[in-house]
Amino acid sequence: MTQRVDLLITNASQVCVVPSVNGGPQRGKALGTLGIVTDGAVAVDGGQIVEVGAAADLRLRYDAARTINADGRAVVPGFVDPHTHLAWVGDRAAEFEQRIGGATYMEIMAAGGGINSTVRAVRAASVEQLVDETRARLNRVLRNGTTTVEIKTGYGLDTVSELKLLDAIFRLAAEHPATIVPTFMGAHAVPPEYDGRTDAFVDLIVHEMTPAVAERLRSYSQETPVFVDVFCEPGAFDLAQSRRVLEAGLTHGMRAKIHADEFASIGGARLAVELSAVSADHLVTTPDADIVALGQADTVAVALPATPFGLGHTHYTPARALIGAGAALALATDCNPGTAWCESMPFVMALACRYLRITPAEALAAATLNAAYAVGLGDQVGSLEPGKQADLLILDVDDYRHLAYRFGGNLVQTVIKGGQVVASV
Amino acid sequence: MTQRVDLLITNASQVCVVPSVNGGPQRGKALGTLGIVTDGAVAVDGGQIVEVGAAADLRLRYDAARTINADGRAVVPGFVDPHTHLAWVGDRAAEFEQRIGGATYMEIMAAGGGINSTVRAVRAASVEQLVDETRARLNRVLRNGTTTVEIKTGYGLDTVSELKLLDAIFRLAAEHPATIVPTFMGAHAVPPEYDGRTDAFVDLIVHEMTPAVAERLRSYSQETPVFVDVFCEPGAFDLAQSRRVLEAGLTHGMRAKIHADEFASIGGARLAVELSAVSADHLVTTPDADIVALGQADTVAVALPATPFGLGHTHYTPARALIGAGAALALATDCNPGTAWCESMPFVMALACRYLRITPAEALAAATLNAAYAVGLGDQVGSLEPGKQADLLILDVDDYRHLAYRFGGNLVQTVIKGGQVVASV
Repeated sequence: MTQRVDLLITNASQVCVVPSVNGGPQRGKALGTLGIVTDGAVAVDGGQIVEVGAAADLRLRYDAARTINADGRAVVPGFVDPHTHLAWVGDRAAEFEQRIGGATYMEIMAAGGGINSTVRAVRAASVEQLVDETRARLNRVLRNGTTTVEIKTGYGLDTVSELKLLDAIFRLAAEHPATIVPTFMGAHAVPPEYDGRTDAFVDLIVHEMTPAVAERLRSYSQETPVFVDVFCEPGAFDLAQSRRVLEAGLTHGMRAKIHADEFASIGGARLAVELSAVSADHLVTTPDADIVALGQADTVAVALPATPFGLGHTHYTPARALIGAGAALALATDCNPGTAWCESMPFVMALACRYLRITPAEALAAATLNAAYAVGLGDQVGSLEPGKQADLLILDVDDYRHLAYRFGGNLVQTVIKGGQVVASV
Repeated sequence: MTQRVDLLITNASQVCVVPSVNGGPQRGKALGTLGIVTDGAVAVDGGQIVEVGAAADLRLRYDAARTINADGRAVVPGFVDPHTHLAWVGDRAAEFEQRIGGATYMEIMAAGGGINSTVRAVRAASVEQLVDETRARLNRVLRNGTTTVEIKTGYGLDTVSELKLLDAIFRLAAEHPATIVPTFMGAHAVPPEYDGRTDAFVDLIVHEMTPAVAERLRSYSQETPVFVDVFCEPGAFDLAQSRRVLEAGLTHGMRAKIHADEFASIGGARLAVELSAVSADHLVTTPDADIVALGQADTVAVALPATPFGLGHTHYTPARALIGAGAALALATDCNPGTAWCESMPFVMALACRYLRITPAEALAAATLNAAYAVGLGDQVGSLEPGKQADLLILDVDDYRHLAYRFGGNLVQTVIKGGQVVASV
C-alpha cells in the first residue's frame, strides 16, 4: 500500500538531515551531526517533510504527484541566514575604495561616509524603493540557497524611518518565497542629530520607537517571532544603554538579540545570557568567562566571519573555544553595505572552515539547524526532519563538503521552499 | 556617413577600457588606469573592438547589425586568468576536511592524499574524462567572466600522462569559447616513483618529456604561445633543477613561467628575471632585492591570493611593495583541487583589495590587461582598445568597483567573447 504525497526527491547521492539533538540545536561535540542518508530520497507533502530514507525504499512506499530526480547530487536543508541588514538603499563602494586606500574610519565619516550615508539614503527613500532594492538582493540570497533570512531595521534611526524599514521588510515577507524574520534595531547607531546624546536617543528608542514598532507589528498579524537588537560596543551603546533597549523590546513582546564583542568586549555576551537572548552575534573579542557562560546558556552564538573578512582583518570568532564550552554555534552573512556585502551562506561556510577551524559538517549544521534556532524557528526549518517545512537544496555536486571546500562560486542547483521549486539553474 | 559594424553595445554607465601604457602592461603608479567612458558604447566588428566612446556619439556614427542595450550597467574587459591547474579529475574534499581537522601535510600524504592522489586519478583517467570534468569547470569559469584562461599540465608527471593532459587542454581549446593558453608543467611535483631522485626526474623532463611535448605541440599548429613552468620551492625543485627545466623548455621554443616564493624564497624570482620569464607567480616570501629586480624587469608579477586564503593563511603577496618597485602586477585564481578550487576572478579581486591592499581599479587592471601580458597576449586581449578581440562583460551593476566591494557572488550578467554572446543570466 503506497502513500500519496505531493513530491518525491529521489536519487540523491547524500541527503543531509542535520537532526536536532535533544530537541534543540547541535551543541559542543554534537555539532556536525548530519544524519547522512546515501542513495537517499525525501518525501514531501503539504509543503512539509514527510520522510527521509533510502531512495529504493521510499520509491516503493510513496506514490508522488511529482518526482524530482536529483541524479546523483547531494541534498541539504535550505540555509538559514540569522543575521542580515539586507534592507537598505544605495551603496558604499566609494567608501570601500577610500578604506582600501588607507582612509581611517573618522576620515570616512568626515567625508560623509559610514553608516550615516546609508541612513541619509534610507530616510530619503520611499518604501517602494526600499522594497525594490532589497528584493534584488533577496533574489540573489535565495539563488545562493538561503530559504529563511533575518532582516534588521536600523538604517532609519528615527521613528518614521524605522517604521518605513519595517513596512518594507513586511511587504517582502508577504511577497517573497523566502521566510523573512524581522528584527527591530533602532539601536544600530546613534544618528547625527543625537550626536553626544546617546542616553537621549535611548530614551527615544525606549519611549517612542519601541512602542510604535510594537503597535505596527500588531497590524501585521505576524506569525514568526520578532526580535529586538542592539549594537553593544564602545562608541555605540554601552552595557546599561543596551540593557534598556533590549528590556524595552522584551516588555513589548519581542525577543532579544545582541551585537556583542565585535571590536571590544564590554559585557554584551553576558547580558545576552542574562536576558535569555535568542542569540549573541559577532563574538570576536569575547573573554573566556563569557565563552563559558554562552556554553551553558540557551543563547545561540552567531559567528559572522564575512565581517572581519570584508574589513581585511585576520581575527575571527573563537569558534573552537565556543564549541568546546558547549555553545550552539551558528553562522550568518551579516550582509550590509558597509563591511560585508555578501549574499552567500556557502561563502561564509568556506570562510568559517578556514579561519574559524570548523569542519564542513560543523559549518553545514551551523548554517542550517543552529541558524534556525538563532531566529527562534528551530522547530520549523533548518533540518530535513519530518514535520518541518520542506526547504531544501539540490547541489550541483555529489558531496556536501564541496560547499566549503570550494569558494567564490555557487554550487546550489535547485532551491525548494515549502515543497515548491523557487529557483533553479 | 555611418560605418557598418556587427555589434554596438550601448547605454553603458561605464566602459572601462584599461589601456596599455607605453605599449605594455600597467606598471607602478600607472596600475589602475581604467580610461573610463561614462554613458559609453563599444563598436565591434569582425570579432574585434572598433571603437569605445560616448554612446550618443557612437550611435550616430555606426550602423550596427545588432545592438545590445547595456541598460545603464558597467562594461569591463573579459577577465584573463593567467595561472590555473584547471585540467584534473576527481576532487580532494576529504583531504580538505582532514586539513581543517588539524592533519599535517605529511599525515595527508601518508593517507594517500595530496597532489599524488590527483596524479593517480589523472594517470588512470581517459582523455575524454579529463575533457568532461575540465569542461564543466571551464563553463563556470566563463560564466564568472573569464574569457582567456591559462591551463597547466602537471598532474601526469610521466610522459604519457603529461601528453594526455596536453591533448585534453588542446581539445578544450578547439571546442570552448574561452581562449585557452597551454602550459607544460611536468615539473609540478616529483612523482612517487622518483621519490628521493629529483635529479633523475629532471633528467626525464629535460631529455624525454620536453622534446615529446614540443613534438606534440607542432602537431596542433597552435597560434597562441605555449609556456613551460616549474615549482621552484624547497621540497619540490631547487634553483639549479628549476633552471634546467626552464632552459629545456626555452630550447624547444616555449616561454618561461615560474612558481616562486610561495612558502620560502630560494631565488626563483631572480631566475625568472634572468631568463626573461613572461611571469613569476605566487611571490609571497619574495625578498626585497628580488622585488626591486621584478620592478625593473619585463616579467609580470602574478599574485595568487586564493591560495593563502584556501589554506587559511594570512600572509599574502606584498603587492604594494611590488607596485612601488614598478612591477607589473597581475592576479590569477591558481584554481586547483588541493589548495584553491576557485573559479572566480572577481573573488580574487575582492580578496586582493582587502589583503594585498590594492584598489578596485588596480585589481581590475591586474585581472585583465596585466593578466593578458602574463600569458603573452597583451597585444590581443585584456583591454577594450581598438584592434583587440572583443572580449567584454556587461555587469549586473552600474559601477565596476562592486566587483571587489561585494564578495561571494557573481555580478557578471553577460559574457561576450570575440563579439559573440557566450554566456548570459
